[in-house]
Amino acid sequence: MSVDIRTQGLERPIKVAEYLFARLHQLGIRSVHGLPGDFNLVALDYIPKANLQWVGNVNELNAAYAADGYARANGISALLTTFGVGELSAMNGIAGAYSEHVPVVHIVGCPSTISQRNGMLLHHTLGNGDFNVFANMNAQISCDVAKLTNPNEIADQIDHALRECWIRSRPVYIMLPTDMVEKKIEGARLDKNIDLSEPENEPEREDYVVDVVLRYLHAAKNPVILVDACTIRHRVVDEVQALVKKTNLPVFVTPMGKGAINEDTPSYGGVYAGTGSQDGVQDRVESADLILSIGALKSDFNTAGFSYRTSRLNTIDFHSTHCTVRYSEYPGVAMRGVLRKLTERIDPSKLSGPPGPKVVNEVTMNRDDSDVITQAFFWPRIGEYLRKGDLVVTETGTANFGIWETKFPPEVMGITQILWGSIGWSVGATQGAALAMKDRGQDRRTILFVGDGSFQLTAQEVSTMIRHNLRVTIFLIYNEGFTIERFIHGMEAQYNDIVKWKYTEVPSVFGATDKQVRKFIIKTKDELEKLLDDKEFNDAHGLQFVELWMPKEDAPRALKITAEISAKNNAREE
Amino acid sequence: MSVDIRTQGLERPIKVAEYLFARLHQLGIRSVHGLPGDFNLVALDYIPKANLQWVGNVNELNAAYAADGYARANGISALLTTFGVGELSAMNGIAGAYSEHVPVVHIVGCPSTISQRNGMLLHHTLGNGDFNVFANMNAQISCDVAKLTNPNEIADQIDHALRECWIRSRPVYIMLPTDMVEKKIEGARLDKNIDLSEPENEPEREDYVVDVVLRYLHAAKNPVILVDACTIRHRVVDEVQALVKKTNLPVFVTPMGKGAINEDTPSYGGVYAGTGSQDGVQDRVESADLILSIGALKSDFNTAGFSYRTSRLNTIDFHSTHCTVRYSEYPGVAMRGVLRKLTERIDPSKLSGPPGPKVVNEVTMNRDDSDVITQAFFWPRIGEYLRKGDLVVTETGTANFGIWETKFPPEVMGITQILWGSIGWSVGATQGAALAMKDRGQDRRTILFVGDGSFQLTAQEVSTMIRHNLRVTIFLIYNEGFTIERFIHGMEAQYNDIVKWKYTEVPSVFGATDKQVRKFIIKTKDELEKLLDDKEFNDAHGLQFVELWMPKEDAPRALKITAEISAKNNAREE
Repeated sequence: MSVDIRTQGLERPIKVAEYLFARLHQLGIRSVHGLPGDFNLVALDYIPKANLQWVGNVNELNAAYAADGYARANGISALLTTFGVGELSAMNGIAGAYSEHVPVVHIVGCPSTISQRNGMLLHHTLGNGDFNVFANMNAQISCDVAKLTNPNEIADQIDHALRECWIRSRPVYIMLPTDMVEKKIEGARLDKNIDLSEPENEPEREDYVVDVVLRYLHAAKNPVILVDACTIRHRVVDEVQALVKKTNLPVFVTPMGKGAINEDTPSYGGVYAGTGSQDGVQDRVESADLILSIGALKSDFNTAGFSYRTSRLNTIDFHSTHCTVRYSEYPGVAMRGVLRKLTERIDPSKLSGPPGPKVVNEVTMNRDDSDVITQAFFWPRIGEYLRKGDLVVTETGTANFGIWETKFPPEVMGITQILWGSIGWSVGATQGAALAMKDRGQDRRTILFVGDGSFQLTAQEVSTMIRHNLRVTIFLIYNEGFTIERFIHGMEAQYNDIVKWKYTEVPSVFGATDKQVRKFIIKTKDELEKLLDDKEFNDAHGLQFVELWMPKEDAPRALKITAEISAKNNAREE
Repeated sequence: MSVDIRTQGLERPIKVAEYLFARLHQLGIRSVHGLPGDFNLVALDYIPKANLQWVGNVNELNAAYAADGYARANGISALLTTFGVGELSAMNGIAGAYSEHVPVVHIVGCPSTISQRNGMLLHHTLGNGDFNVFANMNAQISCDVAKLTNPNEIADQIDHALRECWIRSRPVYIMLPTDMVEKKIEGARLDKNIDLSEPENEPEREDYVVDVVLRYLHAAKNPVILVDACTIRHRVVDEVQALVKKTNLPVFVTPMGKGAINEDTPSYGGVYAGTGSQDGVQDRVESADLILSIGALKSDFNTAGFSYRTSRLNTIDFHSTHCTVRYSEYPGVAMRGVLRKLTERIDPSKLSGPPGPKVVNEVTMNRDDSDVITQAFFWPRIGEYLRKGDLVVTETGTANFGIWETKFPPEVMGITQILWGSIGWSVGATQGAALAMKDRGQDRRTILFVGDGSFQLTAQEVSTMIRHNLRVTIFLIYNEGFTIERFIHGMEAQYNDIVKWKYTEVPSVFGATDKQVRKFIIKTKDELEKLLDDKEFNDAHGLQFVELWMPKEDAPRALKITAEISAKNNAREE
């Protein structure tokens, strides 16, 4: 009997691709986004074998956006591209995931280790024999880079990368050479899931921080809670909901935190974004003598142009890597443990302060006499249309500013990209989010609001929604171009115009049969009301496409404020 | 009278944007590709003022591809994007231009120098205060990076970057902060064009090389000339044509060199690509006792999988930065001067050797009895359809391998991307190339051959062709997916399938009126013959879209050979 030296010493040899995909499955991934390319084809053969589905996106940028959406809805996602051409097309999508703390596993099928070592002049290279250049670029937008070149190390590298991806909630980059795909590694490791638990805080340090917070909180006259992006992205939504429930403190969300709090929570007070806040919110938050600020990410668009008027002396910050009480910093003390203990130990009877404003969808007061569907009218009205459990995706522009005025029913997931703000992102993200729901067996509606300008960048991803029979309703805001840019600069400028497409025909051209898609052109308030009240429209399970006419030079209140500040900032002289 | 310190000492103050765009105009650029974004809007105002046209592409990757096509057809091009989101979307397109030596000026509108210095948490950033990260990435795929932050240096930086772009025939990256756009710099410099002349070779060294080459050439029994990519990319086409004319030596092109030689040149012998060569070519080239190899770029797909059987001892290499005679290297001796002197000094009466094969479009011998349009039949037949001066764009896949079998009429420009090979590139490149022709006032046909799989990645750039009323005929090869991938791996695999679109409806949906587009579905050889012979089809000035049915598992000869070698290389074990 001869001994296969390649598998010698392995208890249960399996191939690298099998191992990698099995790990993805263990993490809860069921679909892998991406496109085929000549350096990833053999790996693709192992996707169905691991009970994963290949998505087959239409291009790599869209695939990256879709992976981002899938990860937001599912917890984590995977994207598989090919060397050079594929991965670079995905770059903007991965950078967005990095910026916004979204865990995407990016696997790149690349030339064999032998070709790399020999510096072969292969297609999809820069022609300079450098096979590391794209990995180096990706290292800037990934929290771990794993180059799988030595079978003895591969299992460790994969497990480490996947753990980092989850814990740090950011993309990782895995380079899979063609000649490693079928190399044998230890399969017995798969019996034990990757440890995804966060390191516990050192108990004494944690107790100390909790004590300090409690002291300030019990002394405060009118404290509030402010919930921001990293609450969602670093998965402490449950902890925060528990704290709110026990304390009944007034709770507000930032634009990037919207969706983290069930908006029918009695003490929910609305969206805080400085001067861009909802009615009554700015006063209430900025007059608080203590703000428990959770997962803050104070970017320009998340703060309506840095328009907070809050003081560090009144603020306690909770983050995934540290906490800060006024000017005292506690590095290494992560928010999860602190929030849990806080909720456990707090005495609600010692808390005081007036309630926050009540939030309702202000439909009637924003309804004017004209037929025109205004931004002011639309967004509160959508609050009445939404139902429990919907996924709401909003594109950068009028949509992700307008949604501030929409009160969500319980358990609505809000998905948007306010920090990175890449137009076109939402079309891919919607496909990914809707597919995640399907994969999880959750029959929830995914609803996209996207402007016509943004839609054009990534329109063909509608084709993937059709391919996978996803439950998606698209509201395309037909307002003739880049309205957010118009409000920053060039209201009348030709460069903010776009070509008028026949938008409602897009799904049919991209492969939908008449049975697979329902189309609507909505030009007036009455038509809109009728549509939103229609039972069939509300209950539809397939793809629906609504072309929604709105004025070219109309924008949500908050967008106007933010755009003006942005323009000033761009032009500022010293 | 007060003195404006910002313009003090300037003879003729003009704004940075005015200066930059005036320089682009001087270089022969008439249209600027790109998309508006909040950090480039003010700059965009200055485009029409400089008598430039704003293209207004549909997304940035497509815009980069279009800029690539425009540069190939025009000599140089410009792309304007916004910070982070815009520029990263363009990354793959710029990398392709770098890989294939295409001069694209990439201008990125970015946050003000003040915002950068203060590390502000702006949208379109990674949220880490690093404003150089994208420039660092771009430095890997640009031959110069100019960060315009100090008005005193800006004119120099711009002139240097543009010169590098031209001379090195590769992309440059210019970072234009919002607060620099309207800063005043010296306009009087514009009276003198940027010096784009290449440095002359040192005369004695050049003479030495020419003497050596002449000695070998006069001694050779059957020398040939082989014309490759950098002949075109480094602009020595005229020099090479002159050499061929004077010597009448058999001349061959590589796939990436195709189009550099007028194919009705009496001594033109066809495409050489090792085992992938046209009939009779491999023997003739590989039996030559001397190959004058001009602008070689021996990548896998350009050599049918490294299948050359030529010897260094029989080869003289001419490059833009050096020459090599057998094993003797002459760094710093650029080919242009050498080629000119060679042509001047050569004595044709001293040259010997048999002629190469004659090239004809082998239509009849590839016409079988079936109705089916085969790849073997199609490409020679297209050679009969093409006319003098056409621009022919071929996508990676069946098209850019198939075109090897097409004999071009005189002055046909062949545009393809064999080294980088990014699928979808050709749709953008076609828009750019056709626009370049329009800008130059040349009424030439631009003809695209693209597979259905590739077309889907970038389909919406058809919208830009419509916006600018370009003269384009698109042959969409409808063969149900990624045929080139099938031949590498996974002939039947689902991951090589795509969603079937209604392709001929694409232009209408993307904004074409019935008058603006003519559509055809061609399923048989007879239908194809009729179409290609139709006068109106041949002479059309607008957009034409042909859905061309070809078998799913059919591919050009050369593609089959190359794919097989590629698959073996991917799987090779040591």
